[in-house]
Amino acid sequence: MDIKRPSSGNPIQELLASRWSPYSFASRSVSEADLCSLFEAARWAPSSYNEQPWSFIVARKENERDFELLLSCLVEGNQVWAKAAPVLALGVVRLSFIRNGKPNRAAVHDLGLAAGNLVLEAVARGLFVHQMIGIEQDKARAIYGIPEDAEAWTGLAIGYLGSPEALPAPLRERDMTARQRKPLRDFVFSAKWGEPPPWLE
Amino acid sequence: MDIKRPSSGNPIQELLASRWSPYSFASRSVSEADLCSLFEAARWAPSSYNEQPWSFIVARKENERDFELLLSCLVEGNQVWAKAAPVLALGVVRLSFIRNGKPNRAAVHDLGLAAGNLVLEAVARGLFVHQMIGIEQDKARAIYGIPEDAEAWTGLAIGYLGSPEALPAPLRERDMTARQRKPLRDFVFSAKWGEPPPWLE
Repeated sequence: MDIKRPSSGNPIQELLASRWSPYSFASRSVSEADLCSLFEAARWAPSSYNEQPWSFIVARKENERDFELLLSCLVEGNQVWAKAAPVLALGVVRLSFIRNGKPNRAAVHDLGLAAGNLVLEAVARGLFVHQMIGIEQDKARAIYGIPEDAEAWTGLAIGYLGSPEALPAPLRERDMTARQRKPLRDFVFSAKWGEPPPWLE
Repeated sequence: MDIKRPSSGNPIQELLASRWSPYSFASRSVSEADLCSLFEAARWAPSSYNEQPWSFIVARKENERDFELLLSCLVEGNQVWAKAAPVLALGVVRLSFIRNGKPNRAAVHDLGLAAGNLVLEAVARGLFVHQMIGIEQDKARAIYGIPEDAEAWTGLAIGYLGSPEALPAPLRERDMTARQRKPLRDFVFSAKWGEPPPWLE
């Protein structure tokens, strides 16, 4: 949808410009080959000490029981719309290093890098991903037997874009509104916090 | 370098397959236009509640004083090689929500999403990025006046690929070794932790 494209600013890759996080998903299934490539993309993300601290728990709607279980790990406000997606996933992070058990300060950041790769591979395949922080972490641990040194951190709804008409009014409006971002000068600084560099346009 | 390409696995986008994190950087300068597009790419990353909790402090080698200051915020082991890059940056994250001061559990994850976008925009422009967790967080706060509710989290070295010959032997070897990743079945699970889904290839 054109309304979701960055309306101004410096040029960026089409893959990055066309990504957004819809609330509306079509019922169309995601192929196994596409799914494999999405997680392959996550696999090749960089991570501190190449720890690869991410894991993903995935449920396809084709398996009704699996899907309902995963859906139940999202907070209710997310279940409302995410139930329409053909694929749901949890992003899980190991918070300590395997080799020495010390805290991995990069772990959650690196889950973000892996998820970012996954999302862009999805966009390249005509898919959309809506990530969520609103999940039931303890419930996920109990249901899936997530080990103590790991933690379910995010939810991901994956699928093809649907019609916003099917959404409750407030969500429908969000899907039909332009994306907003801070200007670069509000978050790119040089020699002093709050001072944008001279080369910034 | 061909040795850095994923050697097997499911197909993924060229942009994702060709990314890696070199220790060797050429002296060639990065244009202002390219830099602006890198941060523009970060700008359009998704974030929880659209909080956009990321900021970046950036120094170009053209400004010697700025560059030395930023270099001094990296741990010594990173300074050794990162000093060759024409651009250095710190990734800074606001750990609480602006609107209510509550902890933002997604903040560090979302810094990762923004950095991931930046890295891929860089790759598309022939650039490379090597991210680091080894930074001096307190020093960065003191030097730049980073506010209390934010924290320098990562370092980024940005530039064109250099010759590994110029590197100390252990780093040279890393730049000339194939990338390794866990197989998908070790981190993509279905109904139970540790159990890969039947569709995984």
